[in-house]
Amino acid sequence: MGPMNVSRIDQVAIAVPDLDAAIDLFTRAFGLTVEHREVVESDGVEEAMLPIGDGYIQLIAPTSDDSTVGRFLARNGPGLHHVGFTVPSVADALDHLRAEGVRLIDEVPRPGGGGHTVAFVHPKGTGGVLVELIEASPDH
Amino acid sequence: MGPMNVSRIDQVAIAVPDLDAAIDLFTRAFGLTVEHREVVESDGVEEAMLPIGDGYIQLIAPTSDDSTVGRFLARNGPGLHHVGFTVPSVADALDHLRAEGVRLIDEVPRPGGGGHTVAFVHPKGTGGVLVELIEASPDH
Repeated sequence: MGPMNVSRIDQVAIAVPDLDAAIDLFTRAFGLTVEHREVVESDGVEEAMLPIGDGYIQLIAPTSDDSTVGRFLARNGPGLHHVGFTVPSVADALDHLRAEGVRLIDEVPRPGGGGHTVAFVHPKGTGGVLVELIEASPDH
Repeated sequence: MGPMNVSRIDQVAIAVPDLDAAIDLFTRAFGLTVEHREVVESDGVEEAMLPIGDGYIQLIAPTSDDSTVGRFLARNGPGLHHVGFTVPSVADALDHLRAEGVRLIDEVPRPGGGGHTVAFVHPKGTGGVLVELIEASPDH
């Protein structure tokens, strides 16, 4: 497997204005349950992780209106926000994407939710899709 | 498992204006490959399925400007379009969603891409996310 072979969809992230209401909806409608809930200050969000298969639906609510997700909601309304791919190494993946000329948001790996090492790829580099790279860890 | 317990993320679908260009990008950037490519006349799309983990990235290009995806692209530009959940029975899932008061697009199961039985749930019923229910089949 090369440095950039993504191994699975770790998460589909949905921007929501009200985390409790969204959890209630996804629980009732789709039979999902919350495994983990966390404020990620660096991303300006409170997130809830709802396992599905070997990945997650991630519900993300902004902690302030001027956060990235707050501005997303103001512009687009609630809905699909990003997709997260598991990769063996975020650093190697970023090197590969740079070599392919793909525009990045994070030039270096950084800490993300759940203690994972992550980096975001710019939607302009992926045909309009915000992609999060999430480093595989021994426990997940 | 109840009728509405979704078992996995079958697909993350991305609306693109040019299917060949999008395939080239996702192949180079993320090491994915195309398993299957198909025109689905009932949905007004040509779609390419790129396996990742136990699901797919689905790239969908409109077959005409006035198709659903053509209008989506005109309004939003390229990007995340819908998420597909595998369910044991689409008919049972629709019954459950109706009982929960969730707004539907397809009131009854119908044929979708790849010979699967599918139905779409209205974004207004799911907090802004277009959800496709895809019936599990023996071969996938």
